[in-house]
Amino acid sequence: MKHVGLMLGGPEDLWPDQLVSDIDAPITDWVGVDRGSLRLLQQDVVPVMAIGDYDSMVPAERHRVEHAVKDMRYSVPEKDDTDSELALQAAFEDLRADEVSIFGATGGRLDHLLVNLWLMAEPRFKEYAPHVAIVDRQNLIRFFRPPAQLVFPRTEYKYVGFVNLTPVTDFTIRNAKYPLAPFASDYPVSWASNEFLGDQPIQITFSKGIIGAIYSKD
Amino acid sequence: MKHVGLMLGGPEDLWPDQLVSDIDAPITDWVGVDRGSLRLLQQDVVPVMAIGDYDSMVPAERHRVEHAVKDMRYSVPEKDDTDSELALQAAFEDLRADEVSIFGATGGRLDHLLVNLWLMAEPRFKEYAPHVAIVDRQNLIRFFRPPAQLVFPRTEYKYVGFVNLTPVTDFTIRNAKYPLAPFASDYPVSWASNEFLGDQPIQITFSKGIIGAIYSKD
Repeated sequence: MKHVGLMLGGPEDLWPDQLVSDIDAPITDWVGVDRGSLRLLQQDVVPVMAIGDYDSMVPAERHRVEHAVKDMRYSVPEKDDTDSELALQAAFEDLRADEVSIFGATGGRLDHLLVNLWLMAEPRFKEYAPHVAIVDRQNLIRFFRPPAQLVFPRTEYKYVGFVNLTPVTDFTIRNAKYPLAPFASDYPVSWASNEFLGDQPIQITFSKGIIGAIYSKD
Repeated sequence: MKHVGLMLGGPEDLWPDQLVSDIDAPITDWVGVDRGSLRLLQQDVVPVMAIGDYDSMVPAERHRVEHAVKDMRYSVPEKDDTDSELALQAAFEDLRADEVSIFGATGGRLDHLLVNLWLMAEPRFKEYAPHVAIVDRQNLIRFFRPPAQLVFPRTEYKYVGFVNLTPVTDFTIRNAKYPLAPFASDYPVSWASNEFLGDQPIQITFSKGIIGAIYSKD
């Protein structure tokens, strides 16, 4: 299985203790996004690809990345696609990833965080959504498509919140501490702080849209 | 002018250097939400009201809050409204706030962050949206309603990103480093890292929905 790790430029103190994710397979290939490439090299991890405009790096840092990474890609800030969009697309289309885990996506600037969170709401990435995880020190986000899904508990996380990234219809939550009766909304809602009933999976159903499940701990 | 500060439970290291906001008036009344009440007391600020279930506090902490705060309100976790929703409503309806600035809304658990960000997308809070700011160490968020608004530069922040909290139609950005031609979307988008042209305000227009402007700095 090809499991690609994307390292974005978010602050290092929010990385999880180990750069692993809930996808039960080691990361086979790393992609560094902008400053993320340098951060991977500092951890003795050589990304197979680097994407960015690298304008936040001093020349010595940039040279280090260019020297180490074979597949260097240069983005143009004026273009519509963000570096994270380019990286996600390259991971699935060029590297043929089966699964992608994204690190360094949170913290710092909130406009960046929202770019990363909302990637999965884009129609072109919908197919990939069930194969993507966003991971930081306190949170793990997975994405679900209609019509019915089981969300399994993970011992590391006490809470699970649900968010509709897109308009949603007939959204229900069953077999959870706080069930939800059929709900429809054009606007986004964060049903925070739900909990699993022991080892049982939570059942969610919805007829359209993308739902994110945010596992978290205090 | 009544300018209410809401202190939520988010990590203290993300608070801005000073507990002030861009609203050009000092905060006249503080409301503490859950652990936020204790944090205010630790800064020698006595909130006029405290809201929460206080279950993250040890008894001594809880007593300290109950001793200091006259208007104690106890929320029920099973209820639909979150503590931040209750606090925002109380600020405008009970305290008759003209403006509300929210601190401690970011960092830590992402389901909590999204609850706070999406408050302004709720139909019941739409009227209040232009009178609310969310502030942390690197970000300041303001909210805008249709049809046309001027977004003014702030010297402290280099970037401004725009996000549609709700489906949006005919959204345009003019007089900015990266203009946007009329855009419609059912799903959320974060147009990150835009910049002002000198001292000039950015002009945004849109025919429905709520747009958030995220001022930020690296």
